[in-house]
Amino acid sequence: MSAADDLPEARFFRGGVRLPALPPFDRGQAYGDALFETLRAHRGELPWWDAHWARLTLGAQRLGLALPDPERVRAEALELLAGADAVLKLILSRGAGGRGYAPPARAEPVWTLSRHPLPPPPRAGGLRLRWCELRLAEQPALAGLKHCNRLEQVLARAEWDDPDIDEGLLRNVAGEAVCATAANVFVLHGRQWTTPPVDRCGVAGVCRQRLIELSAARVAAVAADELQRADAIFLCNAVRGILPVARLGERQWAPHPAVAELRRRLGDAHPAFVPGDD
Amino acid sequence: MSAADDLPEARFFRGGVRLPALPPFDRGQAYGDALFETLRAHRGELPWWDAHWARLTLGAQRLGLALPDPERVRAEALELLAGADAVLKLILSRGAGGRGYAPPARAEPVWTLSRHPLPPPPRAGGLRLRWCELRLAEQPALAGLKHCNRLEQVLARAEWDDPDIDEGLLRNVAGEAVCATAANVFVLHGRQWTTPPVDRCGVAGVCRQRLIELSAARVAAVAADELQRADAIFLCNAVRGILPVARLGERQWAPHPAVAELRRRLGDAHPAFVPGDD
Repeated sequence: MSAADDLPEARFFRGGVRLPALPPFDRGQAYGDALFETLRAHRGELPWWDAHWARLTLGAQRLGLALPDPERVRAEALELLAGADAVLKLILSRGAGGRGYAPPARAEPVWTLSRHPLPPPPRAGGLRLRWCELRLAEQPALAGLKHCNRLEQVLARAEWDDPDIDEGLLRNVAGEAVCATAANVFVLHGRQWTTPPVDRCGVAGVCRQRLIELSAARVAAVAADELQRADAIFLCNAVRGILPVARLGERQWAPHPAVAELRRRLGDAHPAFVPGDD
Repeated sequence: MSAADDLPEARFFRGGVRLPALPPFDRGQAYGDALFETLRAHRGELPWWDAHWARLTLGAQRLGLALPDPERVRAEALELLAGADAVLKLILSRGAGGRGYAPPARAEPVWTLSRHPLPPPPRAGGLRLRWCELRLAEQPALAGLKHCNRLEQVLARAEWDDPDIDEGLLRNVAGEAVCATAANVFVLHGRQWTTPPVDRCGVAGVCRQRLIELSAARVAAVAADELQRADAIFLCNAVRGILPVARLGERQWAPHPAVAELRRRLGDAHPAFVPGDD
């Protein structure tokens, strides 16, 4: 197992042609008119490729973006990974356009692949969270998509620089918990897992979807105080799998066997998420 | 007077250094973590430079972006304009960053200048508008800023391709008129001009601000039916000045002397907006 601990590397393409850099007038740069996917690679393979591509396809349909050839993208991704354990990021933009919001009629999609080192292992014993002040705006036309309009997440993540805090939970305007800045959230009451809906804000995470199936979670609003009363909570994303939570403000949780059980099951679904000794 | 009817041209800079292209891992491309300004140049000059830079400064403060040296940016802009009547666009991004929303501690801002041809003259007799279906989400943390998270505008502008429609009006979730996809809106009742607030959604347009002063407009919510009952309405932005509106759905407006008077005053404030014969 080789670790991609080198510097990140990015490659740019328009349609099927590799480019030396992002071309000028890219609508991703201009308007965030783009989607992205972040995939966990294991020994150079992308076990959840199909699920990521399916989400990208759905997002492209909703935004009216053209898709490049999936086989070409996957082949380039695998070449870039070169066998490594790493994070692969794909940005798909609508392509070049002049000034003005009107989507160009025949823009060729521009896509960027980049390889990044694995994130550091999560804090032993579980994450420490805070509530973010920023409330997520409700925009059903964009909710669920992993689009590149991410200033809300940037502002929320900028609310703290205390290294003792690992992640921040975000609420909607009604005060319900939606997600963390870069992860979805699952909440356990008794034997029932719940995760908030993502049809008004939030991202429909690939790992979230897998875990809804593995845990028979219901998708329902989670008031902030329900979260405080939960028997266990965890965060999840497709780069880090399940991240058990140990603390949210004053509230603390001991490790819970239901989380350990789900981590085992997730390890069966993606070899990079086989639980270690943490 | 020379018209910049050539192809657009873009130049990239990091701090004070010119770059051959947008560098990889730009947070503007990744997250729309950037601001922009669009300026009308007249004979190579930028009459409203100070107002645009002031708005950019305010936006940079709110997002925590570093600013490049304004004199350097202005000098590069004037060189790029080379005496032309044109549109100058400036994009200021937070700079390069790895994966993750946390703003890098010492990112150097990356800025892009581009020169674009003047837009075609507005429709003689006044614009024809439609109501957009998409409702603007309310995000006070971002409202007013000319930031690069513009998917709402992209989706709204994609709602129509009828060349008989010039612009679309956007409402907030309460159904109040906020702005057009790429312009602010002013509404006349009797002698009183009103323009909607931009503290929950919308952009604090540079031309809007100038016109609030010139027209003694009040800033107040404008219900959709108030807009239908208005004696006159116009759109405005810093590229095109005042754009009289002739039609919104079935509602039609004849040219109104109060709009003509404001256009004369705006022409005093920016030579590119001196009214013609339209």
